[in-house]
Amino acid sequence: MYPIFKPLRSIFKSYSSKEKKLIIALESIVGDKPYNLDLYKLATQHSSIAKASGFGIKLSNERLEYLGDAILGAVVAELLFQKFPFKDEGILTEIRSRIVNRESLNNLGKKIGINNIVEFDAHKKTSLSHKSLYGDTLEALIGAIYLDKGFIACKKFIIKKLFAHHLDLDEIIKDDPNFKSRIIEWAQKQNKELKFETVEIKTEKNYKEFTSQVFINGQSLCNGFGLSKKKAEQDASQKTCVQLNIP
Amino acid sequence: MYPIFKPLRSIFKSYSSKEKKLIIALESIVGDKPYNLDLYKLATQHSSIAKASGFGIKLSNERLEYLGDAILGAVVAELLFQKFPFKDEGILTEIRSRIVNRESLNNLGKKIGINNIVEFDAHKKTSLSHKSLYGDTLEALIGAIYLDKGFIACKKFIIKKLFAHHLDLDEIIKDDPNFKSRIIEWAQKQNKELKFETVEIKTEKNYKEFTSQVFINGQSLCNGFGLSKKKAEQDASQKTCVQLNIP
Repeated sequence: MYPIFKPLRSIFKSYSSKEKKLIIALESIVGDKPYNLDLYKLATQHSSIAKASGFGIKLSNERLEYLGDAILGAVVAELLFQKFPFKDEGILTEIRSRIVNRESLNNLGKKIGINNIVEFDAHKKTSLSHKSLYGDTLEALIGAIYLDKGFIACKKFIIKKLFAHHLDLDEIIKDDPNFKSRIIEWAQKQNKELKFETVEIKTEKNYKEFTSQVFINGQSLCNGFGLSKKKAEQDASQKTCVQLNIP
Repeated sequence: MYPIFKPLRSIFKSYSSKEKKLIIALESIVGDKPYNLDLYKLATQHSSIAKASGFGIKLSNERLEYLGDAILGAVVAELLFQKFPFKDEGILTEIRSRIVNRESLNNLGKKIGINNIVEFDAHKKTSLSHKSLYGDTLEALIGAIYLDKGFIACKKFIIKKLFAHHLDLDEIIKDDPNFKSRIIEWAQKQNKELKFETVEIKTEKNYKEFTSQVFINGQSLCNGFGLSKKKAEQDASQKTCVQLNIP
């Protein structure tokens, strides 16, 4: 039967064949027709092919990526909050960072077929942007869906389409070489107060070396070192796990 | 007229006088009655007075703070995205960090009266947690509003109640003049020893937040925040100029 409320767009506007291809790809990725196709077209434009607009800004997906990153962060924060009512905020933050880190998002982007819609200049592409091309575009797509369909629909896309089919949450949580979350969990069970402190930041010409210290019930334990605060804390946590026989 | 759909709660449950006080304070802060008061009660519980639940977790507002932080980040991201259609994502990220940094949130928390609802143990409170007590509780309150009333209502609270009345966005955005050079010039004239130190680097996924501290003759003065060392020093310099009346 012919739909009664056929979108005005499809009556008054005829799409180019490139646009039609994009719509088909989007329907398969998002599971739904776009309302405002322009948003999605912008989401596919990597900065390497950005054209300047009349207002002095480049027309690339970077602003949408910024928005999508924040929306994705909020949705994942709530997902973990609801799924793990008895885990504390330190562990939830830690699990979240394993889901939304650059590598994980890039893999997710590849899995859902972002490679079929992203447009970029292969010659200009640096090795850095290559590592995050699909992940960045995925975030831009999330920004576009949010603006096009609102928070609830965007959340549904992230949880029901993106994660349900392409992310093994249990695997992410189980696969835990992470000493920091081990020690957090241990401290919680033992009812001990745990604190990490960055006690030194050594600035070299091309990098910084961080020194982190673990405190349990106010008493300093192990020092850890690394090129980021996170790595230094991980190192300090590993040493603490060994020293206190934390499994 | 008697409301037809009076909430079940108000028929079956009588509130304690402490709960009634909290409801009145919440109505003034949030501008709306809570549906699930338990969420808001939890949001007011600082970790210093946290009681252990039967499931091995502490009943404090820290999980709600984690959630509220993510929701606030998303709402501010969109607000700036819409308000500044011609600013690039780097600038938006920078402005966002000026709005949601620890000090700014703490001030906002104080302004809307978080001090009237937060419960904490003044003896256990460390100097660190004091600096963020109101800001952290404000984030927990945002988490509670989100769970209680959903994303749209929570976004409305943040934009219409929190920011519209208590945050001067234009002031935040106004380009800073160079405060660091002012303070350097002043120190030279006054023959004082001036030092800047990066005291903290918080690493997020897509950016780092730097905290810089100004020392004059070895004495620590103001903290500043920013997405680069330079910006954090600029922010710390501005505060020092205000504090010391440096023209």
